[in-house]
Amino acid sequence: MSLSSSSDPVLVEVLRGDMVECVHRGAAVVCDADGKVVFSIGDVDKAIYPRSAIKALQALPLVESGAADRYGFGDAELALACSSHGGEARHVETAAGMLAQAGLTETTLECGAHWPSGTAATHALARSGGKPSALHNNCSGKHSGFVCFACSEGIDPRGYVGIDHKVQRFVAEAVGEVTGHRLDADTAVGTDGCSIPTFAIPLKNLAHGFAKFATGEGVGPERAKAFARLRAACAAEPFMVAGSGRFCTDVMGLFGRRVFVKTGAEGVFCAALPDQGLGIALKCLDGASRASEVMMATLIAKLLPMDAAEAAKFGRFVNPVMKNWNGITVGTLRPTFS
Amino acid sequence: MSLSSSSDPVLVEVLRGDMVECVHRGAAVVCDADGKVVFSIGDVDKAIYPRSAIKALQALPLVESGAADRYGFGDAELALACSSHGGEARHVETAAGMLAQAGLTETTLECGAHWPSGTAATHALARSGGKPSALHNNCSGKHSGFVCFACSEGIDPRGYVGIDHKVQRFVAEAVGEVTGHRLDADTAVGTDGCSIPTFAIPLKNLAHGFAKFATGEGVGPERAKAFARLRAACAAEPFMVAGSGRFCTDVMGLFGRRVFVKTGAEGVFCAALPDQGLGIALKCLDGASRASEVMMATLIAKLLPMDAAEAAKFGRFVNPVMKNWNGITVGTLRPTFS
Repeated sequence: MSLSSSSDPVLVEVLRGDMVECVHRGAAVVCDADGKVVFSIGDVDKAIYPRSAIKALQALPLVESGAADRYGFGDAELALACSSHGGEARHVETAAGMLAQAGLTETTLECGAHWPSGTAATHALARSGGKPSALHNNCSGKHSGFVCFACSEGIDPRGYVGIDHKVQRFVAEAVGEVTGHRLDADTAVGTDGCSIPTFAIPLKNLAHGFAKFATGEGVGPERAKAFARLRAACAAEPFMVAGSGRFCTDVMGLFGRRVFVKTGAEGVFCAALPDQGLGIALKCLDGASRASEVMMATLIAKLLPMDAAEAAKFGRFVNPVMKNWNGITVGTLRPTFS
Repeated sequence: MSLSSSSDPVLVEVLRGDMVECVHRGAAVVCDADGKVVFSIGDVDKAIYPRSAIKALQALPLVESGAADRYGFGDAELALACSSHGGEARHVETAAGMLAQAGLTETTLECGAHWPSGTAATHALARSGGKPSALHNNCSGKHSGFVCFACSEGIDPRGYVGIDHKVQRFVAEAVGEVTGHRLDADTAVGTDGCSIPTFAIPLKNLAHGFAKFATGEGVGPERAKAFARLRAACAAEPFMVAGSGRFCTDVMGLFGRRVFVKTGAEGVFCAALPDQGLGIALKCLDGASRASEVMMATLIAKLLPMDAAEAAKFGRFVNPVMKNWNGITVGTLRPTFS
């Protein structure tokens, strides 16, 4: 398995003026719930770290255990559990509220603190003389879900980010079942930015998993119910999944229940198209989000029926324009596959 | 000319745990002052936008015209004219001071305003209730140099970012002479982030140009003097070329006059090794700075004699470690060429 195989094509070009300034290679695959590959480009059998793109699957124990019900979590809380948020006020407050429902505070979180990934939120926090806490970490919703699950189940949350902790074992079991890729001692594993393990999973398995997530097919009725609930939560509260001006929020805001989409660090993207019964997984091999977004937008444009008004609004995601500090258009990104 | 040619090899791998998570392709070339290629990898005949990596060449009219002398510019001002700075207090004050020497203010600058690229500087500015001005733009030193040159020459600075303005024509003439690549109406040109034109130049010509910059060979005595003065300024004031915790500042801080190195947006790097009489130019094809830095560090480690203590200090640039929000080491970058 090599990420540098010659089969990895250029999928996105970055133009400045009329010249290609940069290129981004990648691999992408679309599956149905039977695991049939509907479209693929590049090496899609290679295992990649899915990073935050599978947060919706990592939230399954929270929902399936009954913890989300016990603590009265609605759409906002469940969407935040699936999120990589910008650390904006409502994100931070909602994470704190999730913890409070389980009688916890941010001191339980083991994700580490960082300045909000949302620029305006960072400026506001600095202006107020504040400092970032674990609640501002873009993963605080997922982590709040983890510790709420632990408390509901009577599991000591301390050390919950560890690969051998019961919380991560429940999470890995759910992800392994949905993707059909067992996560065990033989699986390559890394440590994520927020300190939880991230297991390597082939792109094709990820796409198959998100086709199940899209449809509820191929899983039991309880899991299908959890899938539907998580999808509905993200569709109802797309702001909670990312934040102001972010791809996931804006695309789910545009298409509602027709598209679930979630980014992950280092150029990963997963999506579910419920009406088409399809799952999508892709990776930009150099890790660039600007390119993984164009790849995902291109696949959505290809697979999702949309009317002319929607297509017009969606165009800026397929062919983003780059402006400079004076607001002058200096370049564009364009997909080189279709 | 295509950036997606199969001759572009993987030059840097990003590991998380034991697995390669991302790869970066690129091209790099080392030349001597005669233009002889000492080392090359990838397609180095391709023209790229050098972006900010050639700011030292763009500063030539400021020095050669006598404007720098007229306004009493020392090492700090000349280093800032060659910089992509972090918008830290000393950068901002020095740019303002350059303008003041010519009787100008920041309103003359046409680079646009943006929040400091230095994180701590952005937090400090927000905490103080301030807003960014053109002085915080990472290119404000270069632009201050442009307008000071204009004023010294009796050229109206208004519109100085335009490709047909006298300032840019003088700059393009100097860059074209040094790189041996004439910049004219047939040259591909884009608009840079700070609104000035950026002309496409083959990597090999850039490396040759920086070998001349390293040695003063192949140019007239006045230009050789200007080269030496700009190199000495950056060696004496490496902080002014970039800022706290930045590659260019730290590497020039470590090696002093033995290395001149300057980054450019979208994965470009140029360098000069005076004692070896060599120039280096490289581009990471996906535009990632993390990879262009490893490529440059690898070439410096290969070409520059250094003692054991220096090599130990320099190791973190050749094989950077990635830490997560809890300070845990989660990965490394490594070059795949030598």
